[in-house]
Amino acid sequence: MGMYKNLREEAFEANLEISRQNLAIYTWGNSSALDPDKGVFAIKPSGVPYDKLTPESMVVVDLDGKTVEGALNPSSDTKTHQVLYREFSGILGITHTHSPYAVAWAQARRSVPVYGTTHADHGTEEVPCTDFMSPDAVKNNYELETGNLIVETFKKRGLNPAYINMVLVAGHGPFTWGGSAAQSVYHGAVLEEVCKMALLTLSLDPLAKPLPAHIIKKHWERKHGPDAYYGQR
Amino acid sequence: MGMYKNLREEAFEANLEISRQNLAIYTWGNSSALDPDKGVFAIKPSGVPYDKLTPESMVVVDLDGKTVEGALNPSSDTKTHQVLYREFSGILGITHTHSPYAVAWAQARRSVPVYGTTHADHGTEEVPCTDFMSPDAVKNNYELETGNLIVETFKKRGLNPAYINMVLVAGHGPFTWGGSAAQSVYHGAVLEEVCKMALLTLSLDPLAKPLPAHIIKKHWERKHGPDAYYGQR
Amino acid sequence: MGMYKNLREEAFEANLEISRQNLAIYTWGNSSALDPDKGVFAIKPSGVPYDKLTPESMVVVDLDGKTVEGALNPSSDTKTHQVLYREFSGILGITHTHSPYAVAWAQARRSVPVYGTTHADHGTEEVPCTDFMSPDAVKNNYELETGNLIVETFKKRGLNPAYINMVLVAGHGPFTWGGSAAQSVYHGAVLEEVCKMALLTLSLDPLAKPLPAHIIKKHWERKHGPDAYYGQR
Amino acid sequence: MGMYKNLREEAFEANLEISRQNLAIYTWGNSSALDPDKGVFAIKPSGVPYDKLTPESMVVVDLDGKTVEGALNPSSDTKTHQVLYREFSGILGITHTHSPYAVAWAQARRSVPVYGTTHADHGTEEVPCTDFMSPDAVKNNYELETGNLIVETFKKRGLNPAYINMVLVAGHGPFTWGGSAAQSVYHGAVLEEVCKMALLTLSLDPLAKPLPAHIIKKHWERKHGPDAYYGQR
Repeated sequence: MGMYKNLREEAFEANLEISRQNLAIYTWGNSSALDPDKGVFAIKPSGVPYDKLTPESMVVVDLDGKTVEGALNPSSDTKTHQVLYREFSGILGITHTHSPYAVAWAQARRSVPVYGTTHADHGTEEVPCTDFMSPDAVKNNYELETGNLIVETFKKRGLNPAYINMVLVAGHGPFTWGGSAAQSVYHGAVLEEVCKMALLTLSLDPLAKPLPAHIIKKHWERKHGPDAYYGQR
Repeated sequence: MGMYKNLREEAFEANLEISRQNLAIYTWGNSSALDPDKGVFAIKPSGVPYDKLTPESMVVVDLDGKTVEGALNPSSDTKTHQVLYREFSGILGITHTHSPYAVAWAQARRSVPVYGTTHADHGTEEVPCTDFMSPDAVKNNYELETGNLIVETFKKRGLNPAYINMVLVAGHGPFTWGGSAAQSVYHGAVLEEVCKMALLTLSLDPLAKPLPAHIIKKHWERKHGPDAYYGQR
Repeated sequence: MGMYKNLREEAFEANLEISRQNLAIYTWGNSSALDPDKGVFAIKPSGVPYDKLTPESMVVVDLDGKTVEGALNPSSDTKTHQVLYREFSGILGITHTHSPYAVAWAQARRSVPVYGTTHADHGTEEVPCTDFMSPDAVKNNYELETGNLIVETFKKRGLNPAYINMVLVAGHGPFTWGGSAAQSVYHGAVLEEVCKMALLTLSLDPLAKPLPAHIIKKHWERKHGPDAYYGQR
Repeated sequence: MGMYKNLREEAFEANLEISRQNLAIYTWGNSSALDPDKGVFAIKPSGVPYDKLTPESMVVVDLDGKTVEGALNPSSDTKTHQVLYREFSGILGITHTHSPYAVAWAQARRSVPVYGTTHADHGTEEVPCTDFMSPDAVKNNYELETGNLIVETFKKRGLNPAYINMVLVAGHGPFTWGGSAAQSVYHGAVLEEVCKMALLTLSLDPLAKPLPAHIIKKHWERKHGPDAYYGQR
């Protein structure tokens, strides 16, 4: 399996988890795992169903998008991953899905407000939704520009990708990331659940108010702050 | 199993997939597979539950609707398949289901706008919904006229069934087709997911706008255009 | 197992099917099977979870509600079944569930219009919803009066229980029946699916119109009319 | 396994049931079981996924929140359980989940009206939703104050926790309790189903009226009153 055996296995496991968590049907999603020292990431091959995947079928590409190991074409979204790894330093895994509630928010082009602690446990700000991509950007290099669009959205809004690890691309769907490929899939599942809860909340109260700032802060800090006490430490 | 063994097996597999993808409960759906050279198609027998199907139980009928092999009655929707195979040249498989979100759009008699890339990946136009059938057509030959209604809807709107491979029959439900029986079921699953996403989108924004034309075009072309690069080629 | 072995087994299978079709969680539902010659029916014991049921645990009661075989208390809804068997001649099985979409229509106290062919395939009229029961009737004999309320609703509206085999009890939930215990569960599953489709239809068009009468009639007749041609005959 | 073997096993089984009933994904929920004589309860360890739990991993804490047996950190919600055990005398199990429909009502900050018999079978009053916690209370001791907030809500509204065994914490989610850890999970599943049915009811009739008092009373009493006749006695 060449020199990237562990990296391929990590990417393989994360891609299977997309399917197990019902975040995409057929081939509609992809995960990747980065090796920051070697400057390469392993990603799902394009158009291959989850039940046909093997660790060997993962494609290893460098941060310029060149395949360095693997016989298949990498995911058509590879360049989006590439831009995010270059621009969002510290992230080690990325996941893209077409999970239906997250897609609905992306298609309605609404950022997801922090309506409750389920959201606040994983981020202190609304999940941002990008604008539509311009015709020129689409023509230029669509998948690379999708990455740029995400990065620009974070810059314009002053968001830190270390704390907000999810985004909705307008009219398309979610991209999520984290400290490993596995964590990026976890964030994909979190986002789907948060989007479902938020949509149901609005059906009960179209003018629902976000959680007060002091509760958002508390929930984030008990899991992620300097004095975090959630979990085993 | 006679001379149509492979065709029956293809139809059998597609019918099982309807059930596996949760597109119909009990006996509420049917798939068929066409052999264009012999001018016959294999289709589900009428009223038989999915878990009782065998390749042998598939019924082979010609394009005039005459059974050429098989002991059981073919699906009550057989004449609709027959019309579509005659009029939509090039299609090799057809699927009909009662999947709930697609049925909801058919019952609300709304065509499904292209709200996102999940839709654009599979078609560049809204999924058309037919009108109700006239009393005369119902009396004449209901299932054959259902086929005619679909064909007329495509003609009136100038739609090409090679690119738009799905339709909603008003007050009834979806018919989908493709380059094989398996692909027609895949399009049935795509339509259900797209209908669910579109309904959720409208619940977040009743005035949601379709995806801009330049993004629709890009997504279609990266999968189906002359320079398509999605998947393994 | 005494003289009602087959009847108990039929009731047992039907009760398991409630759980398999996800029509009730825990102990929230019950099916019964009638032997019209002996004037007795077998029904689920009260409060026993589906995975603890055995054919032996079914309780056999006569049409006056007296237990004639079985060690356990029969379902608390037994008297409702008893009234329906006495008043709706010809039915041989009854099912009650708390399936969520059917309950929602019952709680909103709305009869379910015939929005599509999925409904018309199983009945030509809207599924009626009763009124609330009066305080006196509740005090008198609640479960028996639930049966009376259903029977009165059918009489007042001139409905024939041979053709409309489902009802919603206001604020409570669905009762369905048929030519066997198995068919009564099937009708419970049909009603849940029809209620889901109808609710989704209204979310797309709050003023959705019912299916035209000529299509309703056609769909009913191709399955149930004198010249029915659906299924194997 | 020390002296609390049975208590740990009861808590372990209840925590597994949270996952089996789909009331929480990943680690988002917890159950505990009280031994009222020894004044201790066993609770899920913090941040451990359901499929990694063992009876041995349960943590036993006393009613002052001190760990008396177990190597892991107890659930971060332990102090909420502690307050409820101290203040709601007679309860022997508590469950907290993030089930999506219950969370939606909590995020919309709406108490759940008694729309039907499914609700009335388990409680005669609406399921109360608390107010948001004040900044001071959050700063002081968040999880302990969550318990106080629940207790205050019951006092202010004159509710008896022996009859109303569920609550929604505003912007957070459900806590449920009962005569055992298993029963507290059961009430968690009941609440999720009741919240789903109530939301669907409002989508059919935004002005839906609660069930009349005489039917609520009847349903409660046939299951829980002095002359209850539901189940096997």
